[in-house]
Amino acid sequence: MIAEQYRKMLGQKSVIRTLAEKAAERAALIGKENVFDYSLGNPSVPAPQCFTEAVLSLLQKEEPVALHGYSPTLGIWSVKEAIAASLNERFGMNYGPEHIFPTSAAAASIAHALRAVTAPGDEVLTFAPFFPEYHPYVDLTGAVLKVVPADTKAFQIDFEAFESMIGEKTAAVLINTPNNPSGAVYSADTLTRLARILTEKSKSYGHDIFLISDEPYREIVFDGKKQPYVSGFYANTIACYSFSKALSLPGERIGYLAVNPACPDAALIVNMCGQISRGIGHNCPSSLMQLAVAKVLDQTADFSIYEKNRNLLYDCLTDIGFEVVKPEGTFYIFPKALEEDAVAFCEKALQYDLVLVPADSFACPGYFRMAYCVDTQKVERSLPVLRRFAREMYGRG
Amino acid sequence: MIAEQYRKMLGQKSVIRTLAEKAAERAALIGKENVFDYSLGNPSVPAPQCFTEAVLSLLQKEEPVALHGYSPTLGIWSVKEAIAASLNERFGMNYGPEHIFPTSAAAASIAHALRAVTAPGDEVLTFAPFFPEYHPYVDLTGAVLKVVPADTKAFQIDFEAFESMIGEKTAAVLINTPNNPSGAVYSADTLTRLARILTEKSKSYGHDIFLISDEPYREIVFDGKKQPYVSGFYANTIACYSFSKALSLPGERIGYLAVNPACPDAALIVNMCGQISRGIGHNCPSSLMQLAVAKVLDQTADFSIYEKNRNLLYDCLTDIGFEVVKPEGTFYIFPKALEEDAVAFCEKALQYDLVLVPADSFACPGYFRMAYCVDTQKVERSLPVLRRFAREMYGRG
Repeated sequence: MIAEQYRKMLGQKSVIRTLAEKAAERAALIGKENVFDYSLGNPSVPAPQCFTEAVLSLLQKEEPVALHGYSPTLGIWSVKEAIAASLNERFGMNYGPEHIFPTSAAAASIAHALRAVTAPGDEVLTFAPFFPEYHPYVDLTGAVLKVVPADTKAFQIDFEAFESMIGEKTAAVLINTPNNPSGAVYSADTLTRLARILTEKSKSYGHDIFLISDEPYREIVFDGKKQPYVSGFYANTIACYSFSKALSLPGERIGYLAVNPACPDAALIVNMCGQISRGIGHNCPSSLMQLAVAKVLDQTADFSIYEKNRNLLYDCLTDIGFEVVKPEGTFYIFPKALEEDAVAFCEKALQYDLVLVPADSFACPGYFRMAYCVDTQKVERSLPVLRRFAREMYGRG
Repeated sequence: MIAEQYRKMLGQKSVIRTLAEKAAERAALIGKENVFDYSLGNPSVPAPQCFTEAVLSLLQKEEPVALHGYSPTLGIWSVKEAIAASLNERFGMNYGPEHIFPTSAAAASIAHALRAVTAPGDEVLTFAPFFPEYHPYVDLTGAVLKVVPADTKAFQIDFEAFESMIGEKTAAVLINTPNNPSGAVYSADTLTRLARILTEKSKSYGHDIFLISDEPYREIVFDGKKQPYVSGFYANTIACYSFSKALSLPGERIGYLAVNPACPDAALIVNMCGQISRGIGHNCPSSLMQLAVAKVLDQTADFSIYEKNRNLLYDCLTDIGFEVVKPEGTFYIFPKALEEDAVAFCEKALQYDLVLVPADSFACPGYFRMAYCVDTQKVERSLPVLRRFAREMYGRG
């Protein structure tokens, strides 16, 4: 009676995890410092001191029964108020606490949003390149994930392809900006055009099409720029946020879902999330974590390290002759491989102890991802190795 | 396109929550200290100091990137090792870390266990009286919850009724001991007989029947007794544990699932839980919480307060003339109401500012639950009020 649905998933091993394991094996042999592991998107800069102080202060000052007590089903009200106020202040929105649902980070936000606005058999559209975990998130709701091919020129949106794929069964569109793996930041133009199409199509199909905005990298934007706030462009938007990257807390599983107050069903959706939680046994994220992040909502970890790494890698890669769009945010860079088969390319790189991820599982074959959330010193030491690899294997640079 | 499945659930308001809201309204009028609120099972004794110290020490001594980093999909290995070692030592078991899956407390443990061993259409049997949240846990997997009527004599198991209900489609049996709401502790005899029936029926139906053991109250047993360890009685047992009650951490959402090593599919089930998590967006519980509880696995909050409250209430209730089985554990007591309709009985009690929960939603009409996780002083002040209520309304005492 073992559930076959999940047993089958065991065979589908993540390419990224497999590579990370290979890197770990190699590190055991030659020392971790000699493996240039660009495989995992695990923040490398510490959580800001203000976060640690917030947790310490809660533990030292608050009464334990109240501090560690049950969170209400829809989240701690004061935390929801603080999140709404911060979003309103920073993005000119009009959220109330009733539009905010604290979650166990972006994965949970997306899982809840999908269950709230789709039914089995519905279609969810996303854009290549995309985070491969979208597949289990969507597949296990019973909806079907359809992937719009990549705009490899700028990693914005290929609107022609999008318009040919959106249809009667489209219940939601799932976007991720700043984007993993391309590092692209959707422009105001892109978001305006996307919103216009969604509005038109909702009208012509006679039902709402929701925009689910996966935005854990919202604050990681370089060159003093900002990510235009997605929910500001389209009423039926569910923002899925996580503090994993912004505060370097990936293991603490803390984030939230914010439904645009302009969405007529906003408060209903948040209430439904409470019901969805009951069934999937999620309930609320840790009370301590909810209370702690609420105290540091406008702070972030130090992203200047990621920007420095981006610059080092971008300059070196373009100098070698890689075709690569300059990332405007995140901690990823997404160059075209030096041969058509990016899997073969990444396997050759492994001989140089360079751990690169082929983008086939991101639905963008021929490209590879480098996660540069690593020490800058290590990035610097990897540059001559990258050059040697490109020269010896492909006669480049 | 709002998912009807969850929208419909919004109408089904929890009786307990509704009562707790009424109690809060009344408290706003007459003062919290004057409302005898026995509605919520929220621990009233603080988390032990050793837990707070464990968290403080982790925050002060560990490097933040490692401390708050991603937990592996199947949980932090050292935490799993510590949990296995503690269970082996205390219950004479033979767990390895590969049999342990950290979860966001009992709700998540049960949700994962159900998804691992049932398929839509399967039947899950539980025993009245039972925690009403089992309904959403089971219903949203697509399986069907069937409730075996209560053994109101001792709140053990009515085996005759059980044997008449178990069938070809039974994939799992879900038990909860020490029991919410009855406070009963299943005896070794009960567990032996249950295991024998499950073994026989598994053989005659030609498929495994899993025992899912919901055991958040495992350590809250009075009079120096112990809960016989359920997994020790039956190979195909999945223990669903939570630190919510044992360490008074209900808001921190931390627990685990432990699959009996004697279950042939034990390691497979843990691996599948990792896949189930991907789809429901649960991932792992907070890394900080995993690491903290691992340091205090054999500690608990001070339960002597619950035992004192149990004694006060049991003596008073029996003296008044209530029919009530003496609870051996938890922080609940479960008397028979003084009229057939327990809802009407509890409504009358509300006039005395006594907040009691009718057990209709626990599938045991005619009974009511009192959660005595409240200050002992308040319990003492409530006793004359209970007496006055029984005398004035029912001529008792």
